Amino acid sequence: MKVVIIGGVAAGPKTASKIIRLTPDADIAVVEKGSLLSYAGCGLPYYVSGEVKEQKHLMETPAGAVRDSAFFQNVKNIKVHNNTEALEVDRAGKRVRVKSSKTGEESWLSYDKLVLATGASPVIPRLSGIDKKNVFTLHGVHDAEGIKAILAEGKAQDVVIIGGGLIGVETTEALAAHGCRVTVVEMLPQILNMLDWEIAQLVEQHLESKGVRVMTATKALALESRHGDGECVTHVQTDKGDLPADMVILAIGVRPNVTLARKAGLSIGEKTGALCVDDHMRTSDPDIYAAGDCVECTDRLTGRPCFVPLGSTANKQGRVAAVNICGGNETFPGILGSTVCKVFDFCVARTGLTETGALSAGYEIVTSMAPGPDKAHYMPQSKPLLLKLVADKETGRLLGVQATGPGDGAKRIDVAATAISAGMTLDDIANLDLAYAPPYAPAMDNLITATNVARNKRDGLMVGISAQEVYRKIQDGADFFFLDVRSPQEYAEVRLPKSTLIPLGALRKRLNEIPKDKEIVAFCKISLRGYEAALVLKAAGYDNVKVLDGGVAMWPYEKEK
Amino acid sequence: MKVVIIGGVAAGPKTASKIIRLTPDADIAVVEKGSLLSYAGCGLPYYVSGEVKEQKHLMETPAGAVRDSAFFQNVKNIKVHNNTEALEVDRAGKRVRVKSSKTGEESWLSYDKLVLATGASPVIPRLSGIDKKNVFTLHGVHDAEGIKAILAEGKAQDVVIIGGGLIGVETTEALAAHGCRVTVVEMLPQILNMLDWEIAQLVEQHLESKGVRVMTATKALALESRHGDGECVTHVQTDKGDLPADMVILAIGVRPNVTLARKAGLSIGEKTGALCVDDHMRTSDPDIYAAGDCVECTDRLTGRPCFVPLGSTANKQGRVAAVNICGGNETFPGILGSTVCKVFDFCVARTGLTETGALSAGYEIVTSMAPGPDKAHYMPQSKPLLLKLVADKETGRLLGVQATGPGDGAKRIDVAATAISAGMTLDDIANLDLAYAPPYAPAMDNLITATNVARNKRDGLMVGISAQEVYRKIQDGADFFFLDVRSPQEYAEVRLPKSTLIPLGALRKRLNEIPKDKEIVAFCKISLRGYEAALVLKAAGYDNVKVLDGGVAMWPYEKEK
Repeated sequence: MKVVIIGGVAAGPKTASKIIRLTPDADIAVVEKGSLLSYAGCGLPYYVSGEVKEQKHLMETPAGAVRDSAFFQNVKNIKVHNNTEALEVDRAGKRVRVKSSKTGEESWLSYDKLVLATGASPVIPRLSGIDKKNVFTLHGVHDAEGIKAILAEGKAQDVVIIGGGLIGVETTEALAAHGCRVTVVEMLPQILNMLDWEIAQLVEQHLESKGVRVMTATKALALESRHGDGECVTHVQTDKGDLPADMVILAIGVRPNVTLARKAGLSIGEKTGALCVDDHMRTSDPDIYAAGDCVECTDRLTGRPCFVPLGSTANKQGRVAAVNICGGNETFPGILGSTVCKVFDFCVARTGLTETGALSAGYEIVTSMAPGPDKAHYMPQSKPLLLKLVADKETGRLLGVQATGPGDGAKRIDVAATAISAGMTLDDIANLDLAYAPPYAPAMDNLITATNVARNKRDGLMVGISAQEVYRKIQDGADFFFLDVRSPQEYAEVRLPKSTLIPLGALRKRLNEIPKDKEIVAFCKISLRGYEAALVLKAAGYDNVKVLDGGVAMWPYEKEK
Repeated sequence: MKVVIIGGVAAGPKTASKIIRLTPDADIAVVEKGSLLSYAGCGLPYYVSGEVKEQKHLMETPAGAVRDSAFFQNVKNIKVHNNTEALEVDRAGKRVRVKSSKTGEESWLSYDKLVLATGASPVIPRLSGIDKKNVFTLHGVHDAEGIKAILAEGKAQDVVIIGGGLIGVETTEALAAHGCRVTVVEMLPQILNMLDWEIAQLVEQHLESKGVRVMTATKALALESRHGDGECVTHVQTDKGDLPADMVILAIGVRPNVTLARKAGLSIGEKTGALCVDDHMRTSDPDIYAAGDCVECTDRLTGRPCFVPLGSTANKQGRVAAVNICGGNETFPGILGSTVCKVFDFCVARTGLTETGALSAGYEIVTSMAPGPDKAHYMPQSKPLLLKLVADKETGRLLGVQATGPGDGAKRIDVAATAISAGMTLDDIANLDLAYAPPYAPAMDNLITATNVARNKRDGLMVGISAQEVYRKIQDGADFFFLDVRSPQEYAEVRLPKSTLIPLGALRKRLNEIPKDKEIVAFCKISLRGYEAALVLKAAGYDNVKVLDGGVAMWPYEKEK
C-alpha cells in the first residue's frame, strides 16, 4: 500500500507513524514544504519566553531523539521529503505533483491513499506597513527566531500584539518575561472570544495587573514608520489613538490551508472554509483522508461544523485516519472546543458551550458561578479558582464550563469535558467520586459546588442575578437594596458600589434595616453566605430576593477600595 | 420538624446546613462528643508538618470564620451541643438520651428525623505498651497537638509508624519534615493496599529515596520501654527485629462508630461492620438517616458493599440525606474508591478497580502501563506520571486507573472516575476532547495514551508482559531475549538486568543478532519504542514477541546503574 501524506508537522507524522505500526510494509511518503518536521508549534510562546531553552527541544521526542528525516527513515521506516511542496493532486491518476524547493525539480508521487495534513496559516490583515522587518506572526519556528533576535538586541520596549485570541494572549506573557511593555489590540469587545464576556473580563483585569494594556473594541488601522530607516514599524495607528511599537505581533487567528484540496475539487466547509471530512476522517474523495488544522470538526453538542485547530485534535484525528486507511473502522466523534491557556498566573480554560453559545444554539439554560479555593482552603498552596457552568434547563445536562484564576482550572475542565461527552446531568456530576485530599482538592470539589449551585437555581431554591444586570441597575440608578453579608474586615478591604454591609451572623437581628418593598440582591465573597442570607430573608417574608452570581470574587467591574 | 444529628465533624454539620437551607424553620440539634466542631480531620498531617500554621485554620470557613457553637447558632440557626455524648436512641419514643461531659447531666432530645454521623475511630492494635505517653493515633486535633509537642521538644529522632495505609503514608512526610528518621511497619506485603503491588512498589521506592524505611510483611509485636522512666516507648519489637522509637504512630486504619446504632437495632453491614443505608441514606429505620465515615457504601462497579471513609463522600452523603429528610428525592449512587494522597514529591491516586480487584470481581481484563511526561515534554515544569489502567476485555469498559509519580495524577484520576461513572469504553476515552496546552498536558493526554495502549493490547496489536513475569523468568534463569531498544546514553545511565541493547533506529539492520527461536521481550523507557520494536520484529517473521508493560520507568525492582 502506497500512502502519500502532505504535511509533516502534527497530524501528518502521527498518521504516518500509526499506519506503519498497523501495516509495517506500507510505503509511506511524507511531503513537507518546510525544512522542519514534527515541531511543537504550540510550544513557540514558551520558546520565545525562554522557558524552552533550545529550538531543538521543540523537535525532539520525549526520549531526546530529534525528529528529522533520518529519524523517520531509521526508526519508523517512513520516507520524508522536506523542503518539498505539493503542487497538485491528480485524483483520477491518484498521484501528487511535488516540487523540491532546494533543487526546483518536480516529480509525481503516486498513492493508493492520500492524507492531507496541510495545517493552517496565520491570517495576515491588510494593513499598510505589514511587510516591515519588525512585524511577525508566531506560527513557525522562524517567526520565533525573528522575535527572539529582536528581544536579544534589547530593542523591543513597546510591543503591540494585534489580536487577543489564544496565541495573542499566550505571547503576551512571553514578551513581558523579556521586560517588554505589551499592548493587546483586539477588534472585538473582549479578548478570548471563546469565553463569555465577564470571564474574559477577569482575564483582562489579570493582564492589566501584570502591566499589560488591553484595548478591546479597537481596530488597528496602519503600521507606520515615523523615524529610523523606514524598514521598521515605530507606531501602530488605531481608531483609539496611536501606539508606539518597537515590534508588532500579528495574532489574528489562523485559516486552514485548503488551496490544494480546493483545486482538487474536494468539499470545503461553507462556514469554516476548512476541509470537510466524515467521522472516518475521509474527504469527499474516498481515497483521500485529511486530519489536523486543515479540517472542519463537528461540535459534539450542537452537531454544527466548527474550526478549532489544536494539536491534541490533530493527533487524535491522525490516529483515526490511519486506522481507517489500514482497513479498520474507527470514528472521530467531534470536539467540545476544550481549550486551556496560561495567562501569567491564571489558568484559563473552557469546554462545551458558553452562555452565549448555548443561547445562540437555542438552549434554555441555567448558569452558575462558583469561585472558591481549588484545594482545601487551609492548605497554603490552595489558590482561587473561578468557575462558570452552563446547563440545559430542561434536561439538566451539562453544556459547558469556563474556568479562570490562579487555581487548577485545567483539571475541572477535563472532568467537565468528560461529563459532557457522556451526556451527564447536574445530578450525575454532583455525586461523582472525585479524588479528595487537602493538597489536591476541597472536600467538595469546585466543579461539584458549581453543579450544586446550578441545581439550587434550577430547583428554584436560589434566584441568581448576573453582575451585568446589577451593574446596569446601578448605572440606571435603580432602587434596589444591594446587601453585602461578609464580615466587616472583608468589607473594609474591598467593596462593591452602592452596597450595604450586614454580616450574615447579624442578619436575623437586623432585619428591620432591610426594606420589605424593594428588590434585594445579596452577596458575599463567593455567594454562599449570600445564598444563606437570601434564604433567611425568604423565610422572614421577603419575596424579591436575588443572589449575585459569583459574588465579589467574580465581579467583573471596578471595586471600591 | 425536629432533627437531631449525632456527630459534629463532617457529615453532621453538612446535613444540618443543607436542612436549614431547605427548611429554614427546622429545629436542628447537633450533638457532638468532642469540644471541636467541623474540623478538617484530613488536614491533620499538614498541621503536624507545619504547612498549616494554626489549629484554628482547620476549624475556619474559607472566609475565616471559626465554626464554633456561636457560629452555628448565629449564622446557621443550628443549635450545637458539643462535649455531649449520645448514649441511647429510643426509636419507639423517637428520642435520644444525651449526656454532657461537662456537667454530667443527662437529658432526652426528641426528633422527627435522626441523623447518625458518628464517624469512625482509629483501630488500636492489642500490643503491650500501647498506652505509653509517646504512642499516638492521628485522628483528632488532640492527637496532632500531642505529636507536635514531642516534635517541638526535638526528642523524636526515630519514629515508627505502624500501618502503611493512607494516614500512615501521609504522616510519614509530615514527620520527615521535622527531621525524624521514619520507619513504616506494614503487616501486608505492600503499603497502600488500595494499589496493585507494582504501583505500591514504586511508591515504596520513592519513600526510601527520601530516607524513609519501609518494612512490609512485618508484624509489630510489642512496644517496649528499655530505658528512661518506663512511661515512654523506646523500641518497637517486630518479627523482623527491633526498631528504636522515640515516638510511635498507630495508623492501622479506622473502624466505623456503630455502637449506638447497633444498640438501637439498626442493620450493620456484615463484611464492613458499617451502618447499612439505602441509596437515600436511610438506615433500616425510615426515620433515621446516616452519612459519612460510619456508613457502608456501595461500589459503583461491582455493586458490593465497601467501607471507604472519606471527607468528600461524607459531604455528598450529608447533602443527599438532608434533601431526603426535607421531602426531596435524591440518591447517592455509590463510590469508586477514588483516592489521592501526597507522598513527598509523588501524587499517588487511584479510582475504580485495581487489577487484583477486577480479577477477584470476576472480570476478564486488559491492562496497560503508560509512563510519560504529564505536560508537553519540552516544558521545564513537566514531570513524569506513571499510569496503570484496567479495562474489561469483553466490553472495553474502563474499570480503574492508578497513578503515581511526581506528575499530575490527580487530574487523570478525576477524569477516569468520571469516565467510569459514565460507563465509557476505551474507544470513548481515546477521543475525549481534553484541554491541551503545553503547560498543562501533552498533546495526547497521558490518560488517552494509556487508553490507546490498552486498545492496542485488546486488539491484539501488542502482547504485553508484566515486570513481575519477566522478573520471575530472570529468577528462574529462563531462556528469553530481553531487548532494550533505547539509546546508548539511556542504557549507560540505567539498565534492567540481563538485557541486551539494540537501539530502535539500528534494529532493522541488526536483526541477525536476535534469535528467532526464543521468546523476545522488548522495552524502552516507556515502552513506545519497545512496541515499535515488537512490530518491526513481528514484520520480520518473529512470532513470539512481547512488550514489557511500563518499560524501565515502571520497573518495580532494582535496576543496574
